[in-house]
Amino acid sequence: MNDDSRQVPLRVALLGFGVVGSAVAKVLTEGAEDLAARVGAPLELVGVAVRRAGVDRSASGLPAELFTTDAQSLVENADIVIEVIGGIEPARSLILRAFDHGASVVTANKALLAEDGPTLYAAAEKAGVDIHYEAAVAGAIPLLRPLRESLAGDSVNRVLGIVNGTTNYVLDQMDSTGMGFDEAVERAQQLGYAEADPTADVEGFDAAAKAAILASLSFHSRVALKGVSRTGITEVTSADMRAARAMGCVVKLLAICERTDVGEGEGISVRVHPAMVPVTHPLAGVRGAYNAVFVEASGAGELMFYGPGAGGEPTASAVMGDVVAQARHRVQGGRGPVESAYADLPVLDPGQAQTRYYLSLDVEDRPGVLASVAGLFSEAGLSIEQVRQESIAADEDGQESGHAELVIVTHQGSEASLSATVKAVSSLGVVRGVNSVMRVVGS
Amino acid sequence: MNDDSRQVPLRVALLGFGVVGSAVAKVLTEGAEDLAARVGAPLELVGVAVRRAGVDRSASGLPAELFTTDAQSLVENADIVIEVIGGIEPARSLILRAFDHGASVVTANKALLAEDGPTLYAAAEKAGVDIHYEAAVAGAIPLLRPLRESLAGDSVNRVLGIVNGTTNYVLDQMDSTGMGFDEAVERAQQLGYAEADPTADVEGFDAAAKAAILASLSFHSRVALKGVSRTGITEVTSADMRAARAMGCVVKLLAICERTDVGEGEGISVRVHPAMVPVTHPLAGVRGAYNAVFVEASGAGELMFYGPGAGGEPTASAVMGDVVAQARHRVQGGRGPVESAYADLPVLDPGQAQTRYYLSLDVEDRPGVLASVAGLFSEAGLSIEQVRQESIAADEDGQESGHAELVIVTHQGSEASLSATVKAVSSLGVVRGVNSVMRVVGS
Repeated sequence: MNDDSRQVPLRVALLGFGVVGSAVAKVLTEGAEDLAARVGAPLELVGVAVRRAGVDRSASGLPAELFTTDAQSLVENADIVIEVIGGIEPARSLILRAFDHGASVVTANKALLAEDGPTLYAAAEKAGVDIHYEAAVAGAIPLLRPLRESLAGDSVNRVLGIVNGTTNYVLDQMDSTGMGFDEAVERAQQLGYAEADPTADVEGFDAAAKAAILASLSFHSRVALKGVSRTGITEVTSADMRAARAMGCVVKLLAICERTDVGEGEGISVRVHPAMVPVTHPLAGVRGAYNAVFVEASGAGELMFYGPGAGGEPTASAVMGDVVAQARHRVQGGRGPVESAYADLPVLDPGQAQTRYYLSLDVEDRPGVLASVAGLFSEAGLSIEQVRQESIAADEDGQESGHAELVIVTHQGSEASLSATVKAVSSLGVVRGVNSVMRVVGS
Repeated sequence: MNDDSRQVPLRVALLGFGVVGSAVAKVLTEGAEDLAARVGAPLELVGVAVRRAGVDRSASGLPAELFTTDAQSLVENADIVIEVIGGIEPARSLILRAFDHGASVVTANKALLAEDGPTLYAAAEKAGVDIHYEAAVAGAIPLLRPLRESLAGDSVNRVLGIVNGTTNYVLDQMDSTGMGFDEAVERAQQLGYAEADPTADVEGFDAAAKAAILASLSFHSRVALKGVSRTGITEVTSADMRAARAMGCVVKLLAICERTDVGEGEGISVRVHPAMVPVTHPLAGVRGAYNAVFVEASGAGELMFYGPGAGGEPTASAVMGDVVAQARHRVQGGRGPVESAYADLPVLDPGQAQTRYYLSLDVEDRPGVLASVAGLFSEAGLSIEQVRQESIAADEDGQESGHAELVIVTHQGSEASLSATVKAVSSLGVVRGVNSVMRVVGS
């Protein structure tokens, strides 16, 4: 770094001017002096690519001539391109074009990275530029840099994350007010926590993309979106929430990345599903739309990272951290982190994933039922940890209904043995129905 | 990075073979294959400097010839020097010598950094090498890298940290069992959480050194140890713990770094003291010897980092993260972060620090007392938020003692006005004594 280089501004192009893009532009303009001091050179916003021309954006305080619909030309004339459009195309093409023209890219695009990350990483490396994506997972929470740098000398064994604020808000509402799923989603929509079409969140697609990214970094292996098994929260009921409470648990949608050894060598299990989490676990206390990620590493032990998982300003904070890192590399020399996939661990079949299970069955209230049910668990290789059976009253007079609720919690077992058990139990004459099945995570 | 460079091992020298040093050596040897893949070159442990020769260290599994008492020669022949001796000398001289010979340094030495950090940063920069010190604060928790890199595009306003596991364990014991300070320290010593001489921990020296480092990084300004105002936990009583509980709080030893504006422009307040923290605050739930740091930034909002704050393996995890980062720079080119002190904010006089206060006074139980006391608070400019007065029974028959306990909680006010108030109140005839004064932090 010499005094001359400090004077040459770095050209920054911004793709997208939604909630995150406008927050990024605000930091770039209002924080210009601090950024220049931290980088060693000024950052100059050279253009903002938008979809529609002719919209009045004067409230942003940015000169009208900065806005352009010609994103392609914009990325050809930048040192650093910030991509906050989202989605697969045109984001991917623009990022690849930026690389071709020597720009490094900062993106918050988890869907694209989970879908086609390795193509981008390889293209960046070939072009001798960098791609940064801290904002793609858990918003403002510094998480990817700690995973890939701070823990680079350690061995990560497990990551448990609440990485989708919308679903955490919905589950938290159901838990604290007793409202049902539909009502909680409606409330989240009213408050701006959920989209008009909440599918990507409530079906777990967003969390699955983040899980793929977390697993790739944690285990130095490529994990594609299709390797993530996924169950959303649409089938979580108020009864499940009450059952969790009775177990001393709360229900959370978790992204789980585990390194496991299942006999045929090491592998990775990556999955997203609702789970009962004991109230004593640090993740249980994560309320509202917050995110938190719990990391277990051989040396470091148990770490947790907590903060806002979304929103314009928090996401812009993560984006700008990457921009400063990249800008410092431009000034001082050096490269950002490259893909580390040397371990090349296989992604296990979803049926091999191991966890504990909670099952609630509606059974006939007579002797021998528990023995029959327990026998089927045993045959499928699923070991029972707790059983509770309660007669169900048919009416307000306490008249016997002839039914009982049989609650079973298992030790660790595979998803495959769970499926086999549920199937076998369902066809048992004394079992009238399976009320709910839920995984139990975090001891 | 080319294939040839991958083959040249990086020479790593280890200074110190205590709890942390031996854990570092274990990772370097047992994790050699992973480390080489992550760095792009093997890391070769070329020597371990120890104080005493002739000790049987065969249990470590390291060849006896690696151990040397000649630390000076060792650092002259290394690419990366890991300093885990601690203390000021000979650590400082060895680090400076390492720089002179072109080695970069990874250290966990908070005392040295807080005492003389700028000398080391300048020497490293002059020599064109790096100094990394993630392990110096909050053990295994990735904290300094997030502060200086992830939040480099944001503006940190406040850091509240539980950064000393020993005192957190002691306070947690006092809170959960009702035991007194001395007994809790004894228990911590038995369990290895406290040193035989616990002064550095219980008097807050260790936390103050960490606070100086955190404030320097958070505010891009130099903060020396002497700028940190410090109160330890030796005067925290069981009565204080009970009073905190009654207030819906727990007592924690906090390192507080704040950017404030007190009329004469911006400044930094850095202090370590016990404080009442509401049980609803994320820091309140940090138990035992764990550490946690709560960061408030303009864009990111509220973040928390949680994990083990000490111990051989956790500290080694942080050290090795820095070693891999530095080794990657050696292989790929590039530099580690340099000191960022451009903001050069002044450290405020301790009397200017603003906080809320809890006071418990022993007063005469008669009309007019509250009015007199409240008048003195008002004169000192300290605004009262809550008051509670309770008569104290003299004996088991409930006989009146003539005393009452007057508990006052104030709004934000300066330390100077608190001191003035305490002094004035103490000399009031109707006040028999000041039972306790404690700061209240986190709303």
